[in-house]
Amino acid sequence: MRGWDFSVPIDPQAGVPLFAQISRVIAADIRRGRLRPGDVMPGTRTLARTIGVNRNTVIAAYDDLAAEGWITAENGRGTFVSRVLPDPRPRRFAAITAPSAVADTGAFDLADGIVVDACPSDVEAPYNLAGWPDLRLVPTRALARAWRRSIERRGRHVLSYGPAGGHPRLRAALASMLSAARGLAIDASHLLVTRGTQGALAVIAHGLMRTGDVVAIENPGYSRARQVLSMTGACIVPIPVDAQGLSIDHLAAVAEEQPIRAVFVTPHHQFPTTVTLSTARRVRLLELARQHRFAIIEDDYDHEFHYDGRPILPLASADSSGNVVYVGSLSKTLAPGLRLGYIAASRRVIAHLLEYRSLLDTQGDQVLEAAVAELLEDGEVQRHVRKVRRIYHARRDAMAALLKSELGDAVSVTLPVGGTALWIRVAADVDIQQWSRMAAAQGVIFDIGDRFSFDGRPVPYIRLGFAGLREPELAEAVQRLAATLTAARSRTSPPALPERTAVDDLTAAS
Amino acid sequence: MRGWDFSVPIDPQAGVPLFAQISRVIAADIRRGRLRPGDVMPGTRTLARTIGVNRNTVIAAYDDLAAEGWITAENGRGTFVSRVLPDPRPRRFAAITAPSAVADTGAFDLADGIVVDACPSDVEAPYNLAGWPDLRLVPTRALARAWRRSIERRGRHVLSYGPAGGHPRLRAALASMLSAARGLAIDASHLLVTRGTQGALAVIAHGLMRTGDVVAIENPGYSRARQVLSMTGACIVPIPVDAQGLSIDHLAAVAEEQPIRAVFVTPHHQFPTTVTLSTARRVRLLELARQHRFAIIEDDYDHEFHYDGRPILPLASADSSGNVVYVGSLSKTLAPGLRLGYIAASRRVIAHLLEYRSLLDTQGDQVLEAAVAELLEDGEVQRHVRKVRRIYHARRDAMAALLKSELGDAVSVTLPVGGTALWIRVAADVDIQQWSRMAAAQGVIFDIGDRFSFDGRPVPYIRLGFAGLREPELAEAVQRLAATLTAARSRTSPPALPERTAVDDLTAAS
Repeated sequence: MRGWDFSVPIDPQAGVPLFAQISRVIAADIRRGRLRPGDVMPGTRTLARTIGVNRNTVIAAYDDLAAEGWITAENGRGTFVSRVLPDPRPRRFAAITAPSAVADTGAFDLADGIVVDACPSDVEAPYNLAGWPDLRLVPTRALARAWRRSIERRGRHVLSYGPAGGHPRLRAALASMLSAARGLAIDASHLLVTRGTQGALAVIAHGLMRTGDVVAIENPGYSRARQVLSMTGACIVPIPVDAQGLSIDHLAAVAEEQPIRAVFVTPHHQFPTTVTLSTARRVRLLELARQHRFAIIEDDYDHEFHYDGRPILPLASADSSGNVVYVGSLSKTLAPGLRLGYIAASRRVIAHLLEYRSLLDTQGDQVLEAAVAELLEDGEVQRHVRKVRRIYHARRDAMAALLKSELGDAVSVTLPVGGTALWIRVAADVDIQQWSRMAAAQGVIFDIGDRFSFDGRPVPYIRLGFAGLREPELAEAVQRLAATLTAARSRTSPPALPERTAVDDLTAAS
Repeated sequence: MRGWDFSVPIDPQAGVPLFAQISRVIAADIRRGRLRPGDVMPGTRTLARTIGVNRNTVIAAYDDLAAEGWITAENGRGTFVSRVLPDPRPRRFAAITAPSAVADTGAFDLADGIVVDACPSDVEAPYNLAGWPDLRLVPTRALARAWRRSIERRGRHVLSYGPAGGHPRLRAALASMLSAARGLAIDASHLLVTRGTQGALAVIAHGLMRTGDVVAIENPGYSRARQVLSMTGACIVPIPVDAQGLSIDHLAAVAEEQPIRAVFVTPHHQFPTTVTLSTARRVRLLELARQHRFAIIEDDYDHEFHYDGRPILPLASADSSGNVVYVGSLSKTLAPGLRLGYIAASRRVIAHLLEYRSLLDTQGDQVLEAAVAELLEDGEVQRHVRKVRRIYHARRDAMAALLKSELGDAVSVTLPVGGTALWIRVAADVDIQQWSRMAAAQGVIFDIGDRFSFDGRPVPYIRLGFAGLREPELAEAVQRLAATLTAARSRTSPPALPERTAVDDLTAAS
């Protein structure tokens, strides 16, 4: 032992088991050379006595060290520090000194880049009115328990490669939810699990869009959808939205002029305006798709959050031709950080898309998929949705009342029938950009209408999320909005009224 | 109460808390109409007595029901079944009868599809020799604990939107591992977390490759890399591999003829041949990249699993020009099902790629990323790697011995210095396809050389993974290989010797 002292500092109170504490101390002594290759280790009985623990604890520590290769038991001769230690120092393959940091110049040219629309709502702020769900309400315990069960009971299976379309239990649970609650006549074979809505749209873009294809999209609309749907070369045509949703007259006119490949719609609560696509337009849209043979990409991102009257079933529930490619997500239902979404469509479309999904990222995270499947099977997700729907409903009403009382005639508030945000018309004498900057400086973040415009025309609206904050927090946020509004209003002279904006259609028709 | 009987069947032994059992029974009774909107609920004291539980249990059940909207307490008047029940039945927007299933015909045309190379190794089988890690060894408990801590301590944060490049702790932990163990002079700003290697290559393809770009790739090589790197229109040029790895002479000749955009290499243990790129070739490859200004995509997929002598540092450790885009993954280190990989490169490349990552799937799963960061910080991952490296080392030796003794002259086995599989030359009189089919029928799955060929030339090799199975399992698998070999050898007449094959270079040079 050449003087290795047996003093192994252990702490029975520490969270780490005793044997692991012992083995770590010994491994560290080997690593730093206090114990050297070939040194004999003390007997387990001796060491146990010296440090005052049960001998079995020392045996467990030695087993652990042996498994990791630090020590080797030689039959009948005792236990020794291994001659070949784990973690051999790797060798450089050339006499090149390591650069102090990877150089940023002198290298290959980069292709033309892109800049993805960064939501101001990505910013962390005390009062983020981005329209996110309240993540404090997520049943994290149930989720953590289900995750543990998933990995412990089915570990070998879920940790391995699996089907590109998602864990079979999650596909089945989602299909059964969509068929029971949203009227889709589907089973698991019509469904593909994705990395949230964005992942779903990426798969759809790769599977369906080719250079030069025309894709119609709502304006104002969801800019990340516009960007991802055009990433494989499609040409995007914005179609105006009014108080009844997407203008089908406008879409029909475009379809008469040129073949269109697909239309992207958010019919339940249009993003960002929150309007619902009217019944008459739904029927016409489905007819138009049949007539011109284009795909309808229906993004039903917050189906559950409908407060007034009965929710409307998705287009996909009435699609007898297989033209609807339905996209949903658990980002609002549970949490955006989980990145769980799905595509429901005809079997031929799903089979086609599966290959692209496989190429883009192989498969999803099966541990998580199986865990969430369990929560759906047990009704946990449904219970959570019911609970938060009531809470969001109350927050919507509270927020609307606060805005009316605190912001007065600067805004004109219409209650949305559903969703997680209010779409608010702002008076012409308010400098919205300025207001948004000043509010941000006070910790209040919100989206402004211009961000959602695809044709450059001003959109004199703001979008204020109410779901993510408790009522007293909403009150504080609105106080700060009111405080900054005054400055944004008085500092600038009233701008000339914009001519006719994209969403005047909205006011005109309502 | 109009006759609602109070009989609430409860089971104190069930895993579900009593209050939840009670509230579920009552909710179900409301849902099926045995309790109707406006009905008065029994007092908590009465109900507690009737079903024989503590009154507080009933109070908790009522609170739960009220939170979900099933019942409403009216001040001083009692508790009633809510007049507006949760989950209103959604309405159809048109008098369209639901199709019995989404139609698969008569819809929009699909674009030309692709077929992604389906590994035979995706098949579940008793003896899958795909070269996967042994998932029974994964520290699932530590992982589940870390996941729970991640979601419970940082829930609101990790469940939300976050940086597209990955959770900051994971970026930092990976950067520090790569700089300590693999000689990369990087910090977190040089690193981007991805969905495994496939996700990393998809991001790289979108960020760097444009239609018509030439990308050189090892042949035989990794077919999913070939497919994903060409998905944005790049033209793939296969470059032969011999016993010293990628032929740099061949690559240099190609680069003289035409500009090449990038070369894809697996220098540590080439996939599938397991050969290590020689020192001289490494130096020449880096020089060639500087001279012709192309990117080197270095896929170091199983760095840790090196058994003989010291591992060799990656090309990225000696890249002073910023030409190496380094790709790694935790698929072999921990488990493929977690889908965690990363790209390390110069800051300008990372900033460029981040936008594409964001467009493709927004961000990773931060709960998991923070959990794995914790395991890296605590040294859990490193301990796991040390442990399994010893085990795989022993399995490699056992497998090689078994093959020699059981398969005799039908195969010629060379020990690989690292990795998780053996690359084995098969005698000319064996019908490899036939052997593989017959072995599969006996539950033994392995990859055959032709799958890895990009120029159509036969590759008379098979790849046998040894890492995923215990030694007795390997013995049984080899027994079955031996049993089926006889038939695959005798049934067919020896085929004419193939001319010169892609990997005869291998034998020639060794």
